[in-house]
Amino acid sequence: MTETGFQQAVIPESFAGQVAQIAAFIARYHGTMETRAVMPSVDPGAVFDTLPSRAPESAEPFDAIMADVEQIILPALAHWQHPMFFGYFPANASAPAMLADLLCAGLGVQGMLWQTSPACTELEMRVLDWLGELIALPKAFLFGTEGASGAGGGGVIQGTASEAVLSTMIAARAAHGGTSAPHHTVYASTQAHSSVVKAARMCGVVAEHVRLVPTSSDLAMDASALQAMINADIAQGRAPAFICATLGTTSTGAMDPLASIGPIAQRAGAWLHVDAAWAGSAFVCPELRAPMEGIEHADSFNFNPHKWLLTNFDCSCLWLNGQARREQLINAMSITPEYLRNQASESGKVVDYRDWHVPLGRRFRALKLWFVLRMFGAEGLREHIKADLAMAQWLESQVHEEPRLELLAPPSLALLCLAVKAADAPQANAHTRALHDWLRNDGQAVLTHTTVPDGSQAGRYGLRIAIGSPATTQAHVVRLWNLLQHGLDAVIGASTSV
Amino acid sequence: MTETGFQQAVIPESFAGQVAQIAAFIARYHGTMETRAVMPSVDPGAVFDTLPSRAPESAEPFDAIMADVEQIILPALAHWQHPMFFGYFPANASAPAMLADLLCAGLGVQGMLWQTSPACTELEMRVLDWLGELIALPKAFLFGTEGASGAGGGGVIQGTASEAVLSTMIAARAAHGGTSAPHHTVYASTQAHSSVVKAARMCGVVAEHVRLVPTSSDLAMDASALQAMINADIAQGRAPAFICATLGTTSTGAMDPLASIGPIAQRAGAWLHVDAAWAGSAFVCPELRAPMEGIEHADSFNFNPHKWLLTNFDCSCLWLNGQARREQLINAMSITPEYLRNQASESGKVVDYRDWHVPLGRRFRALKLWFVLRMFGAEGLREHIKADLAMAQWLESQVHEEPRLELLAPPSLALLCLAVKAADAPQANAHTRALHDWLRNDGQAVLTHTTVPDGSQAGRYGLRIAIGSPATTQAHVVRLWNLLQHGLDAVIGASTSV
Repeated sequence: MTETGFQQAVIPESFAGQVAQIAAFIARYHGTMETRAVMPSVDPGAVFDTLPSRAPESAEPFDAIMADVEQIILPALAHWQHPMFFGYFPANASAPAMLADLLCAGLGVQGMLWQTSPACTELEMRVLDWLGELIALPKAFLFGTEGASGAGGGGVIQGTASEAVLSTMIAARAAHGGTSAPHHTVYASTQAHSSVVKAARMCGVVAEHVRLVPTSSDLAMDASALQAMINADIAQGRAPAFICATLGTTSTGAMDPLASIGPIAQRAGAWLHVDAAWAGSAFVCPELRAPMEGIEHADSFNFNPHKWLLTNFDCSCLWLNGQARREQLINAMSITPEYLRNQASESGKVVDYRDWHVPLGRRFRALKLWFVLRMFGAEGLREHIKADLAMAQWLESQVHEEPRLELLAPPSLALLCLAVKAADAPQANAHTRALHDWLRNDGQAVLTHTTVPDGSQAGRYGLRIAIGSPATTQAHVVRLWNLLQHGLDAVIGASTSV
Repeated sequence: MTETGFQQAVIPESFAGQVAQIAAFIARYHGTMETRAVMPSVDPGAVFDTLPSRAPESAEPFDAIMADVEQIILPALAHWQHPMFFGYFPANASAPAMLADLLCAGLGVQGMLWQTSPACTELEMRVLDWLGELIALPKAFLFGTEGASGAGGGGVIQGTASEAVLSTMIAARAAHGGTSAPHHTVYASTQAHSSVVKAARMCGVVAEHVRLVPTSSDLAMDASALQAMINADIAQGRAPAFICATLGTTSTGAMDPLASIGPIAQRAGAWLHVDAAWAGSAFVCPELRAPMEGIEHADSFNFNPHKWLLTNFDCSCLWLNGQARREQLINAMSITPEYLRNQASESGKVVDYRDWHVPLGRRFRALKLWFVLRMFGAEGLREHIKADLAMAQWLESQVHEEPRLELLAPPSLALLCLAVKAADAPQANAHTRALHDWLRNDGQAVLTHTTVPDGSQAGRYGLRIAIGSPATTQAHVVRLWNLLQHGLDAVIGASTSV
């Protein structure tokens, strides 16, 4: 019998040195970030064409790969961690999360069942309790002292808010009977994230039964319009199954009124899901929790620490309100073939997270949340949010003093949505687009746009400024403000000419 | 105006040293793996109860966290990378993938759209072409020289095979008209993975319309039974929408006959998805590709490099057969709100991967596949597979010479499914369970079980031995074989007594 094992050790001698090289690369990347344009200037297909058309037959040296990272990959990245990146929503990365991601990869465990790595499951249960408490979720959303056997709903890490809304919509549908959904209706505001409509489509809700509820002037859901739609649906024999309320819409950060929506959902027997993907991070600060009023009516609550809470993607946290909702989710998602049966699961004393979402396999993602919560501490997280808020407030005050600009919606946390003022909406839109083009052309800062409804078909073209990158300081926001003024000068002329 | 930015640098001075500590920890963890029991001995709730009930208010030192990793986490992990782990399927981790995971975290980019990080998208396109070619997928499954604009289907990294089957089932349903699926039928063998039934449930296929096709004696789908079921459904006015063929079932590694199923799917107009989650890795070896015969009939093909191809979880690769299938997937999944619109997407010259799956956000997972393909080279990957196969074949030959054991199914690649021989099935099941209990109690090796159909209601209790951990060598398989013999001696007596 000869030794036929794969001859390379899992962790070769070279590993420590290569890890150190990557650590140095990361430090240099962040340290020199500002020397790079935020967005790359690269043609479609350029990277694809540069890379060889086939995999190498023989092993290549690590240094050759790192050289390609430097020369091919870096110039074609959008630098999400750049301090002048104000687009979309932030996608926070942090050193503690990076350390934990390396540890996660190094351990290489698979947490689909409690049985397949108890610590992976139970650390997740615990840090979800920690985080839920930090944002002041009611106790019913936490596992609490009794853990898996308690009356609390508990939390789970999902990959994205899209998966969280899909999972809870499936649970809501199942709770209303049957896997097919011919007469179920689903509600979200016209400003809700596209993932709600996508989830409805994926889980088979009839397209005509997805109701987009009008908003009030603040772009938050109009609760009385929701009530009217539900009444009409019930009168037609349909079954309102699911309502998604958004805290912090993508466009403008609007907060749907939970305190009004909650009782409506309850009377209709509909599952109320709260999507606070971005804004949820802010609720670590007590003074920012006003939008959470009425949260006790929610059946599920989701937010993404991978947006604004210093935890690298992917980390989207979902909590269920009480054991009954937890069981409805599990009942909707659980299928147990023989090869996944085990004593621990059958004891009912453990959580098997595979039944809480779409995928079966799962990484040890709780590690990064644990590292982040401990290495920053609750006060570090609050400081991060408050610093961003202070910068947004400063920027807001500048906009108020600038006659050429206006806010298209009330500022929300660290998100502003602004537009160039003009005689009428079409001209304002043209000017705002021109300002956006000017900024894109200049390249020093990145903003993304949206359309804010104003009753017209076109709506208002708005520039979103989302502050939240850990690298962004007041000096960067001042620089952004100067850029905006230069852009305005170039596009519509100096302030006095308005 | 004062400096109000979050005062901590993204990458603090301490980062390099902490990364080095984790690298050393990982090397030590793998280097001393064999001193640990494969599975932990831990009670439900023990880890949860040990961890503090609330997040720390102030930042804690890194060393305190690493001490808890050592003292609380490690003793409660199942060691999936242990050389004596033969359970479930392997979940390969490797140094190149760990390096890339750290790099991915360090870059912190978000690849939901081409626009939001061109290199993230185009590296993925390229490595999926590399990998597709390595397993000899027909050209129509690759992007090919024309990239995003070509006639090829192309590939995408999904999180798990569960998400791949859900996404393609949704595409199939949409291709058959409508988001609701009242008369659509779905087919998979009785041995298919539970994720197929879960996907059908999630996307709203009526439970009664999920057909589990009987298998032949080799536990592969009986193609004539599939044809008969499809005929019956069509006669009843139902629409066969989706067939999942499995290459390498979870229970015994059975291979559904693609060459027979393909034409049946084509005539029925059903989408044929191939789930080769585990076995797909083996197809890097030309001599192991016989089960791929007929692959040209498939509309989509999926396998998980995170199982048996040295790429850390999560990395599940899905390819579409031709541009038409790619567009059907995208049409089913794409919803574009204003804030995601951009020139690149509208040019049609780029791939926006968010439309290829459930989530919107995405990590730079292509990096780890790229590092793995380059640092091992194609020949390194083949060597890894062949070494595992040689060990499985040696083990098989031992089983054939052992009168107390029998194989419950033909061996498949590096998976064996065996049972204790006895006068009748109930006794054999009792003995095999007893042997499993003995092994669990002994703790030196981990196997998981399954049930193999034998016509009786109980079926046959089988022990699965999945060889595939990069740490496993021939010496470990010999040790496993010795353990099995000791277990047999203890449970049913020495060989001569049979």
